Amino acid sequence: MNEPALIRAIARWTSAPPGGGLIAGIGDDCAILRPRPGEDLLVTTDLIVEDVHFHRGALSPSALGARCVGRGLSDIASMGGEPRFALLSLALAPWLTSAQLRAFYRGANQLAQRFNVRIIGGDLTRASRFSADVIVLGAVPQGRALRRDTARPGDGIYVSGPLGRAAASGWKAPIEPRVAFGIELRRHHRATACMDLSDGLALDLHRLMLASGASAEISSAALPRAPRATLEQALHGGEDYELLYTLPPTARRRARPEFTLIGYVTSGPAGRVRLDGQSLPPRGWDPFRR
Amino acid sequence: MNEPALIRAIARWTSAPPGGGLIAGIGDDCAILRPRPGEDLLVTTDLIVEDVHFHRGALSPSALGARCVGRGLSDIASMGGEPRFALLSLALAPWLTSAQLRAFYRGANQLAQRFNVRIIGGDLTRASRFSADVIVLGAVPQGRALRRDTARPGDGIYVSGPLGRAAASGWKAPIEPRVAFGIELRRHHRATACMDLSDGLALDLHRLMLASGASAEISSAALPRAPRATLEQALHGGEDYELLYTLPPTARRRARPEFTLIGYVTSGPAGRVRLDGQSLPPRGWDPFRR
Repeated sequence: MNEPALIRAIARWTSAPPGGGLIAGIGDDCAILRPRPGEDLLVTTDLIVEDVHFHRGALSPSALGARCVGRGLSDIASMGGEPRFALLSLALAPWLTSAQLRAFYRGANQLAQRFNVRIIGGDLTRASRFSADVIVLGAVPQGRALRRDTARPGDGIYVSGPLGRAAASGWKAPIEPRVAFGIELRRHHRATACMDLSDGLALDLHRLMLASGASAEISSAALPRAPRATLEQALHGGEDYELLYTLPPTARRRARPEFTLIGYVTSGPAGRVRLDGQSLPPRGWDPFRR
Repeated sequence: MNEPALIRAIARWTSAPPGGGLIAGIGDDCAILRPRPGEDLLVTTDLIVEDVHFHRGALSPSALGARCVGRGLSDIASMGGEPRFALLSLALAPWLTSAQLRAFYRGANQLAQRFNVRIIGGDLTRASRFSADVIVLGAVPQGRALRRDTARPGDGIYVSGPLGRAAASGWKAPIEPRVAFGIELRRHHRATACMDLSDGLALDLHRLMLASGASAEISSAALPRAPRATLEQALHGGEDYELLYTLPPTARRRARPEFTLIGYVTSGPAGRVRLDGQSLPPRGWDPFRR
């Protein structure tokens, strides 16, 4: 297919008619959106590259499409946002057939639709290796986004579910972005800070503490581990896409796995994380270290 | 540099402090923006890939950075929008040094600053070849975006400047996005449709007519050609980033090169373009045809 034919096909596969804040989607130089009054806009971009984030054949094209969109949705979830729109820019590799491309969009669109997200644009080119950049746009009430620079000494540190699941599965588990729980945290639980666990607890908690200018003390006994996940996988495996968040010291304890307390924020040096009193290195998924 | 160090460096190189609609930029899972009341939001993404859109060494890193941002700004210009924010997602190739990366951001940021655009986020990874996805966000008054599906039979077809300049320069000329003129077209000239000339007049005019469900008749004698550009380069060279737009039949003629009338919209088949009465094939820059 040439580019105009491809764009028409993609518009059919993703089918985002105007309405609901969308004035114009695929087919023009820009997508046109109408923001709702009283809302802040969230924007995130995630670049996935063949042989860095995945290997050809290790994931089906539809699972890869879902993974691309899922990473962006998780970024919106981590701010307590409601995801609305996505754009997908793809560099198509020679090995990708039309059927595989269609499966990629089917996977992307199915996950997007589950979260009421519409794919409204993107860019297409070719390359020797496949890569995809997903842009997700979401919204929160003005001034209410959950951020990572606002955790305070004394806050409890929580995770929304078991860790190490992705690593124990060989990083093939689908991404289940925690959109509903992020919104719940923002609306009902006075979360002081939040981010998603994309690169492993050790590295992501380091980032949360660095941004907040504080230290963290966590306990290995408190860490919820996925079945068959080692402590190493729970700490450094990455790709779990649970939420890592903080609640004020006065927060009521809740008997739900989404509220698993793993430690406390302290007033130590920015970015320091200690596990059972020992320094925990910020080691995790980092494309620049592999 | 590892990823956290790189992100801190990029935040310094691009320096977008909060304010002016930006609540939070680089450093969190999403950027947070506050839309202004009464405006529609424009979003565009452009993926540039090494060995497809440029070759290593053919452009300086700073020219490459400017080119990435310039393509996105031109998309906003083509809708009559005011560009506001940009995000840059990069896959860094092994050959790229830290100094070259800094030069890339300097080039990107300098062009962005000339248009009051702030770089507020992105994603970073590595890859065997360099690629960059630029996302630009802009705004127009509600319902006022210039689109490509709204040209009407009888409208005049115009270009904003000479064509073939990029091809005649070996595609090394810097991009000068027509932001001010796009805004002028929207505000003062009742333009009925507009797009930017990224892939060559023949292909882009075909797209404009396809979207508008109409035909175009243009004249080779009327085409403004850049110095040393052949007719072939003016029609099919691409990368000129002038605006291609339509004005109603009643539009007053203006003696400015930005208002160069090249032909008329007719009620023929959608997408048909004729040059001097002969069918003009929609051939231009298309990564899927090379």
